[in-house]
Amino acid sequence: MQTSRKSKEAIVILDPAHTELIKELDRTFSGWALAENIQEITPPPIYEVADLQKFDVYENFPHLSLVAAALYTDRVRTQPTNGAFIAEDMLEARFGLPIATCYGAYLFYENSVLKQDTTVTLVNRCFRNEDKYEGLRRLVSFTMREIVALGSFEYTQNLLARFTERIQKFACEVSLDLTKVAASDPFFARHGTRAVMQKLSSVKHEFQADELAIASVNTHRNYFGERCRIRLANGEFAFTSCVAFGLERWVAVLANAHQGDLAAALVAVHNAAQRTA
Amino acid sequence: MQTSRKSKEAIVILDPAHTELIKELDRTFSGWALAENIQEITPPPIYEVADLQKFDVYENFPHLSLVAAALYTDRVRTQPTNGAFIAEDMLEARFGLPIATCYGAYLFYENSVLKQDTTVTLVNRCFRNEDKYEGLRRLVSFTMREIVALGSFEYTQNLLARFTERIQKFACEVSLDLTKVAASDPFFARHGTRAVMQKLSSVKHEFQADELAIASVNTHRNYFGERCRIRLANGEFAFTSCVAFGLERWVAVLANAHQGDLAAALVAVHNAAQRTA
Repeated sequence: MQTSRKSKEAIVILDPAHTELIKELDRTFSGWALAENIQEITPPPIYEVADLQKFDVYENFPHLSLVAAALYTDRVRTQPTNGAFIAEDMLEARFGLPIATCYGAYLFYENSVLKQDTTVTLVNRCFRNEDKYEGLRRLVSFTMREIVALGSFEYTQNLLARFTERIQKFACEVSLDLTKVAASDPFFARHGTRAVMQKLSSVKHEFQADELAIASVNTHRNYFGERCRIRLANGEFAFTSCVAFGLERWVAVLANAHQGDLAAALVAVHNAAQRTA
Repeated sequence: MQTSRKSKEAIVILDPAHTELIKELDRTFSGWALAENIQEITPPPIYEVADLQKFDVYENFPHLSLVAAALYTDRVRTQPTNGAFIAEDMLEARFGLPIATCYGAYLFYENSVLKQDTTVTLVNRCFRNEDKYEGLRRLVSFTMREIVALGSFEYTQNLLARFTERIQKFACEVSLDLTKVAASDPFFARHGTRAVMQKLSSVKHEFQADELAIASVNTHRNYFGERCRIRLANGEFAFTSCVAFGLERWVAVLANAHQGDLAAALVAVHNAAQRTA
């Protein structure tokens, strides 16, 4: 069973059966949000470098980041050498590709005062420069659905508790063996107090299946609220949290659990979605 | 009425009302395809440079192209200067960002023999380096839904005729004043015989509203079939054609036509979709 005629490790084109499955998964996860009257916004898959810099992306994840540059066109001929453009072919990179979806939510609410606790959902194509790619399990670009809460600390924790339960129930219904693991890779500045804080309070939990993180729940305290100057009605910076789903990874582990029978995986997801709606 | 709190010209985050409208438009256009039992595939928003090079992208559109590079991380500190990374900060660019959606279809069928005439639909985030950005009318990244036919020349022309009629009927139903214009910008090599041929036979037609191309129908003859070695049962290279919809541009002209009343635009699209289903 092929996912694609173009099954290079870093890049995959999903065939119709895989496409149906990933769409059903996104319909399910976003459906949980929409059923709670959570609204959807649409972020772009590229940002000004200056915007991503606000989140310490180039401080904390320089190795994972990809930036986008235009080409010099004042030459007779602009062509790649051995499948790549060298630095001298490129203009400066003013745009960066996001490594996560939720940045769009903080930039959407940048410089605003929230009238009330707020949750939004959004999906994006994310990009990561990895040492090694593994098809659907680890792609250079993948699809991440997120649900992001902005409000009081208690409100943001409530979202994570609710969705943790839903994720675990859904995994059980589709017969996926899911383990909740406190993640150790620091989201915030590596050597800062926040990194120490994260280790102590385990602010990121991953849901792993097949030794792969397919979802996570994340507490950011008021880090993003401060960086984007998003304030609560009481004047404080907003606390935020997010729930994230790596959709291609769900496809990979479900396909594997059904021995490559994607039609069976689709039925299992559809039925589980109805039972957890 | 704001499309976003982050309404820079090159990049926009769609708010819930704009998101509902763009989703309804995509549901409508892809629905026309799905109703004909056309299957959907899912392309990535990034490719190997070597794959895009097959389509003469860097020969014909070097000025529009953006390439993706990782950063040097062996330095003490990797930080942008004045919101940009300079060439010396970047490793070679092995990946390129697509300027159109349909490349994914040709790469999906690369090196294959089609048992029968085939049509697929796919949507992607596309990227263009423009001199000037204008919000939803001209973004650095936008969403392009396409329907792509691969088969005999007659089969590919049949798709364009059918969808030309649908686009015109739908535009009429949503009260958009649409003009069909033979496009002069050459898709193929600028100085090659194909460019001359295109001018003579007008192989690209745009549908313009508000002085903006919001959809197009395109004939490629066997250019992509040859480049990706996609063969018909008779051994010939496949002919291809595509229908393309620039979704954010549809949102822009519909919002304008309804004086910014997005709820009214949504109802108009929904009703028109039902009448043209």
